[in-house]
Order: sequence, then C-alpha cells, then structure tokens
Amino acid sequence: MHAVEMAEEYPVVDQDSDALDAARLLAERRLPGLVVTDAAGCPRSILPASEVVQFLVPGYVRDDPSLAGVLDESMADRVAGKLSGKTVRSLLPDKPAELARVQADDTMVEVAAIMARLRCPLVAVMEEKKLLGVISASRLLELALAHH
Amino acid sequence: MHAVEMAEEYPVVDQDSDALDAARLLAERRLPGLVVTDAAGCPRSILPASEVVQFLVPGYVRDDPSLAGVLDESMADRVAGKLSGKTVRSLLPDKPAELARVQADDTMVEVAAIMARLRCPLVAVMEEKKLLGVISASRLLELALAHH
Repeated sequence: MHAVEMAEEYPVVDQDSDALDAARLLAERRLPGLVVTDAAGCPRSILPASEVVQFLVPGYVRDDPSLAGVLDESMADRVAGKLSGKTVRSLLPDKPAELARVQADDTMVEVAAIMARLRCPLVAVMEEKKLLGVISASRLLELALAHH
Repeated sequence: MHAVEMAEEYPVVDQDSDALDAARLLAERRLPGLVVTDAAGCPRSILPASEVVQFLVPGYVRDDPSLAGVLDESMADRVAGKLSGKTVRSLLPDKPAELARVQADDTMVEVAAIMARLRCPLVAVMEEKKLLGVISASRLLELALAHH
C-alpha cells in the first residue's frame, strides 16, 4: 500500500490566516491539531490545540497561578478578543512540531519510519508541491493491523 | 463551569495490560493517544499513537533507512508478533508525557492553566483517587468559545 491510498482529508490552515477561525475549527471539529502551511501552500508544521489553550488563561493567572480558582464568566469574549487580529503563525510554539512530508508512492514502512523518527502524529502526503492528504498515527495503525 | 461538567469518557488502559490490545484500541477508535494508569488505577501518562508506530518499522529499516522502500506485505502479522506478550508500559517513551490531573470542582481557568503549563493535550478529572473522565484541549476550546 502506498501513501496516496492511506491519505485522508484533513483541515489545513495558512500561517497568515485568522487565529480565531483556527481556534474555532479546532473546537468545532474536536481536533488535536491543525496542519499549517507556509505562504507557498506547503505544509510545514502543526498547531496543537494544547497550544491555543494558553489563550484561555487570563494574564492575572499567568502572573499568580493561585488566582486560577477565581470564576471567570466572560471566557468566550475574552478569548475571542485575545485571538482576533492575530494570525495562526503567532499562535505557533517557538519550535513548532515538524510536520513530516512523504511522497504519494512512499510505502507504509517509509511512512512509519519517518513518523517514528520524528515522533510526529501526522504526515502530509505530497505529489510534487501539492498536498494530497494527511496520514495520522492512528490511521497508520488501523491500516497496519487491518488484516489481523 | 467546573471540571466535572467538562469531563468526557475516554479510553484508559492499565500500564500492565496487553500492548497489542492497546494498539488495536488506538487503531479502531482512531485516537491520538490513550490514558495510561498505574497499578493503583491512577492515570499517570499518555501513550501516543505515534509512539506505537515505531513497531511498524522493521529492524532492517531501523538499521538501514534506505531499505524502507522495500514493500513489506506481512505488516499485520509482523506488528502483531512484535507487540504480543508486551505490556503497555513497555511501549511508553522513556519520558512519557505527563498527564495533568485536576479535581472535579476546578474551574475552566484552572484546567486551562495546567494544560497550558504542561503543553498537555489531555487532563484527567479526579474525585479523590477516582477518575471521572478526561478533558481534551479541543474540548476545552469548544467550551471556551461556545457562547461567542
């Protein structure tokens, strides 16, 4: 089986797109992360949902964690306010998880080898510079264990 | 909103349970990871699906990555063979991701603060020593952005 047959559709966002839209996409589709592309449309990194969660933490809690127990009723407004006007790029961690890329005709073993080496939960399947789809670690396990 | 209201059911495996069963659970439910409990039933860490993917890589590829392109038709048997007789504990990375634990009455801000600090995709919601459920980063974003 080749990478192109294993690939699935997966949400992709441009690094210069809106941060609040990206947060809503993570929330609505309940995704662990989004694939982020560079200005040329090449998938480069992953924006983990756990990274966006930082924006749910008010400044006064970051300064004094003991205040976290104070109920904050205006979460949605505050988060939207913090994210609006920002780009996806500004949400990325300093060292974003490297997104592995494989070619359409790479084998299952090649996909597994790069995923294992990078400890990466997703790989992007490319044909030249075009993104064909994404293979997640659990998808790979599903295919690898399918006939047993 | 308190942690207990945000918690959801999530698959949990004992660190001494069967590695192949855990791999199948990741595969069948297409999960990015499993919650792993210690001998006392306390959730301690996360087994990422990307970690289990290592067992899809044959020894000859680990020794010589240039051989990864060789088609391997017996993936399922080989993987099952490698995992059977092993425990979940033996699949964990050397430094497993710390699984944050929160109490049932912790607030959304408290959950977000610990998730942000540990860069953790999941937190376990506890009542004393009993696991009530799990909150994922995307679930937290969903709830935080819900009324906007």
